[in-house]
Amino acid sequence: MEKKEQSTNQNRIMLTVSYDGTNYSGWAYQENVPTIEGALNAAIKELTGEELQVIGASRTDAGVHAYGNLAVFDTKSTIPPDRFMYALNPHLPKDIRIVKSQKVAPDFHPRHCDTIKTYEYHVLNTDYEVPVKRNYTYHFGMKLDIDKMNQAAKYFEGEHDFTSFCNVESQALTHVRTVYEVNVRREQEEVIITVKGAGFLYNMVRIMSGTLLQIGRGKGEPSDIKTILEAKDRTKAGPTAPAQGLFLIQYEFPSGIPE
Amino acid sequence: MEKKEQSTNQNRIMLTVSYDGTNYSGWAYQENVPTIEGALNAAIKELTGEELQVIGASRTDAGVHAYGNLAVFDTKSTIPPDRFMYALNPHLPKDIRIVKSQKVAPDFHPRHCDTIKTYEYHVLNTDYEVPVKRNYTYHFGMKLDIDKMNQAAKYFEGEHDFTSFCNVESQALTHVRTVYEVNVRREQEEVIITVKGAGFLYNMVRIMSGTLLQIGRGKGEPSDIKTILEAKDRTKAGPTAPAQGLFLIQYEFPSGIPE
Repeated sequence: MEKKEQSTNQNRIMLTVSYDGTNYSGWAYQENVPTIEGALNAAIKELTGEELQVIGASRTDAGVHAYGNLAVFDTKSTIPPDRFMYALNPHLPKDIRIVKSQKVAPDFHPRHCDTIKTYEYHVLNTDYEVPVKRNYTYHFGMKLDIDKMNQAAKYFEGEHDFTSFCNVESQALTHVRTVYEVNVRREQEEVIITVKGAGFLYNMVRIMSGTLLQIGRGKGEPSDIKTILEAKDRTKAGPTAPAQGLFLIQYEFPSGIPE
Repeated sequence: MEKKEQSTNQNRIMLTVSYDGTNYSGWAYQENVPTIEGALNAAIKELTGEELQVIGASRTDAGVHAYGNLAVFDTKSTIPPDRFMYALNPHLPKDIRIVKSQKVAPDFHPRHCDTIKTYEYHVLNTDYEVPVKRNYTYHFGMKLDIDKMNQAAKYFEGEHDFTSFCNVESQALTHVRTVYEVNVRREQEEVIITVKGAGFLYNMVRIMSGTLLQIGRGKGEPSDIKTILEAKDRTKAGPTAPAQGLFLIQYEFPSGIPE
């Protein structure tokens, strides 16, 4: 199953990665702490013998989860690209699984291409805490007005300067981003905020979620989102909702994936 | 908030306990290993100074979760019974929460009274594993026929000798139990088996679930459940489904709770 033969041809492979972020200090590699990138690099080395660093699509924070983050790397391994996932999974801890592997163009870069990213923010809207959900939701006990949250959500849609919804430590050259869709729904005891966009700033979905929760509990009006966006001032928005409620759901490629 | 004064009156208090069983060796106290009972005893000692052992309603296995297990104990504490939960929660780890506390009659025993217990068994019915669900579902990749599972489930309902669906190490005096309702539903990527009954034998819900999964994947027919029950032979039933898919949902008291 594990082939270590090398061919003269090199393949660029993209992995779709699902993980439970609870026990990781985020995606980005750091020495001596568990990271998703570190675990992927180590698993590939075990499998193919190649010492490399995968390129991640989204460098998620500590505690954030993913159903479909992306990792790209070049390999001389002769394992067929679509079978790579089956070869790699036994080398990964149980809280990281590759759910798809495929060949992409040699110059493909997951952060420099046209994608639609979908995030979900999960709120546990109950009086009491629920232990089995503690690492996968943000417990918020106050009554939430979902209609009002959805009205507020509409103000995020479109191209805006998201400075007010961005961690002040952001080093992005521009804070203008395009959000395609934001909606809020109740699903049993959870309230789920779905955000689709072309790209996001540091902590952007968590600050958007924290602000929607304030409006949902009656602190402010839906149209405040417009005012907060225009202020371009982080202090005008709500708190950053905690990491464990955030899920990176998927990347879509509206213009296809270059092969 | 924490009152340690003692009154001459003693109260019997019942706690409704929600927990994530992942990091525990089950409910029942064992020395030097983490157990739910051990954590409750220690928290009560911290809060009231009383050295005691709570009486559990269901001694769940390692890895099994609960939304509403019950624990009963006597205390001289003057904390009002319905406020006990708020006083106790800060002394418990985050993966155990008291969601209700109430006074019960001095001779009330949670295993010697008329109750309806509800369990759910959660199956993750996807091609690939999902890391965030690994501790809360049993991953079963094969296609499942839910209609057939529901037909099979009906054969469990009523009063039967459940010897075939009981761990051979059971020390129960009789294996006759009454099951009120068993049903199977699909909810997104999960298949959920709900079982309601007056009482259950050791591993009974997990063996019932393992057997329903065999029938659901086409190994056997719904009426086999009748034959297996009649055989009174553990080897005739399916495998014991793994612990992490099992949730003790709630206890109901059809004749009320004696106060």
